[in-house]
Amino acid sequence: MAKQPELDDFRVPYFETKKNDKFSLDDFDPAAKPFSTGSKDTDRARLSEIGAKLDSLQECLHAQQKRRVLLVLQGMDTSGKDGTIRAVFHEVDPLGLRIVPFKAPTPVEFAHDFLWRVHWQAPAAGELTIFNRSHYEDLLVPTVLGELDKDAFQVRSRHIRQFEELLADSCTTIVKCMLHISKDEQRARLQARIDDPTKHWKFDVSDLDARKQWDKYQAAYRDALAATSTEYAPWYVIPADSKTHRNLMVAELLLRTFEALKLEYPPAKESLKGVKVE
Amino acid sequence: MAKQPELDDFRVPYFETKKNDKFSLDDFDPAAKPFSTGSKDTDRARLSEIGAKLDSLQECLHAQQKRRVLLVLQGMDTSGKDGTIRAVFHEVDPLGLRIVPFKAPTPVEFAHDFLWRVHWQAPAAGELTIFNRSHYEDLLVPTVLGELDKDAFQVRSRHIRQFEELLADSCTTIVKCMLHISKDEQRARLQARIDDPTKHWKFDVSDLDARKQWDKYQAAYRDALAATSTEYAPWYVIPADSKTHRNLMVAELLLRTFEALKLEYPPAKESLKGVKVE
Repeated sequence: MAKQPELDDFRVPYFETKKNDKFSLDDFDPAAKPFSTGSKDTDRARLSEIGAKLDSLQECLHAQQKRRVLLVLQGMDTSGKDGTIRAVFHEVDPLGLRIVPFKAPTPVEFAHDFLWRVHWQAPAAGELTIFNRSHYEDLLVPTVLGELDKDAFQVRSRHIRQFEELLADSCTTIVKCMLHISKDEQRARLQARIDDPTKHWKFDVSDLDARKQWDKYQAAYRDALAATSTEYAPWYVIPADSKTHRNLMVAELLLRTFEALKLEYPPAKESLKGVKVE
Repeated sequence: MAKQPELDDFRVPYFETKKNDKFSLDDFDPAAKPFSTGSKDTDRARLSEIGAKLDSLQECLHAQQKRRVLLVLQGMDTSGKDGTIRAVFHEVDPLGLRIVPFKAPTPVEFAHDFLWRVHWQAPAAGELTIFNRSHYEDLLVPTVLGELDKDAFQVRSRHIRQFEELLADSCTTIVKCMLHISKDEQRARLQARIDDPTKHWKFDVSDLDARKQWDKYQAAYRDALAATSTEYAPWYVIPADSKTHRNLMVAELLLRTFEALKLEYPPAKESLKGVKVE
C-alpha cells in the first residue's frame, strides 16, 4: 500500500493567501482515487469501520452538549450528495444526526436575506448537521444565470465568510466538501436515470439545462470555493467519479475532524457515587 | 417655537470615526425635551399626526413587498420600551407590524450562537418589525455579570455589525434607539410599580439587582452603542425622563426614516385597465 495521501492536499487554499489565487479545479482529477487501497472490498470494510467510529464519536459530542459539527455537501447534479450521506452516515445514530436539504427558495425564504433560512438550520450544541446543498447555491446559481455581478458576488461571499465565522466562534466545526465529477461521468449518470424508470423521480428536465451550463458552473464553483475557503470553514475537493472512493474520502475527512475535537464524556458526577436505586 | 433640533445631534457617532471615541452618555441629559413644543397637548397632537402618517407609509411599504424596516428598542428597566410601542404605533395597522420581545434565552436558543434567535425574527419584505429588547442584551448583560471580557465583547460587537450589514444589504433599514432615563427617574417608576398592586406584574425582584449595577450598565451601554453605531444601523440616544417627549422623538425619527425611503405604490397594472368585474 502506497503512502497515505494527505487530506490537506485536497483543501482549497485559504482566502487571501497567495496560493488561493492560483487555485484551479483543473488541478484535481475527478477520476483519481487517492484514498483507495486499490481493492473495493477493503475500501468498504474501512468505510464501515469509520462509520462505527463516527457513531461513537457522535454520541460523545451529544453527551457533551457543547460542540457542534456542520458538514456542507455541494456538487453538480449526480455528483452523489445523497449517496454520500447514505453510505457514510448510515451507521451513525439518527438521533444525533440532522440532514437539511436546501431546495430553491420558497416565497417566504426569498422575502429575507439569503442566509436567513440557513442560519435557522445551523447545528445546535451536541448536533452533527449535514447541509445537502446549502447557502452556496445562492452564490452559484445566480452567478451562472447572470443575476449576480462580480461586486455582488464578492459581497455575498463576504457575508458567507462572516456568517461561518460567527458559527465557528460559537463552538461549531465546519467542513465543506465539493463532490467533483467529470462531465463524462455526469452524462453516464444522467443517462442511467433516464433509462431506468425507477430512477425517474431523481431526474428533472431542468438538470439538462444546468448541464448545458457546465463550464459556467465549474467557473462559478472555482470562484465560490476560492472566496470562502477559510481556516474556520475550509473547502475540500473530493474526486467523486468513483463512488466508493468518494464515500471513503468524505468519511476519512469527517473522522479526522471529529478526532481533532478531542471529545471526552463529561466528568462523572460525584453525587452519584454509591447511589443505589431502590 | 425655537429652531427644530436636529435628530443627528442625538445619533451616536459612527464606529471607527474620531468622534466615536469621545462619545459619552453623560453628554445627553435624560430630562431634556429637545423635540417638545413646550405644550403637552400640542406634542400629543403632533404624535397623533405622525402616527397617521406612519400608518399610510407602512401600507405603502407592505404594498411594495421589497424594503423592510427594523426598529430596535433598548433601555434600562422602566425606560419605557412597552410604552413607546403603544404610543407611537397604536395607529399603525397591526397587519403590517410585528413586535418581537426578547427575554432571557431559552435552553434551545442558548444551544446556538447568540444571533440565531434574532436572525430568524428579522423583518421580511414589506414588514415593519420592532425588537423590544434585542441581541444587544447578549452584549450588555454578560458584560455586567463579568462573563464577557473585553476581547469577547469586541468579537460579539463585530458579529453584530456584520449581521446588521447583512440585513442592510438585503433591503432592510435599521434604526436603533436607546431610551435614556436617569437613575432618579427609574427609582420613581420602580417605586410606583411596587406601590400599585395592578402594576406588580411589571415588577420582578431581579429589577432591583439590575438597578444596583446601574453604573456598570451605563458603562456597558456606552461601549455597546459606540461599538455598533454604523451608517447602516445607527444608534440614537432618546432623552426619556419625559414620556411625552420620548414618544414624540421616536415617532419623529421613524417618520424621517420612512420618508427617506421615498416609498411609492407599485405601478398600476396595464392589464387591469378597463377591466369590468362581472
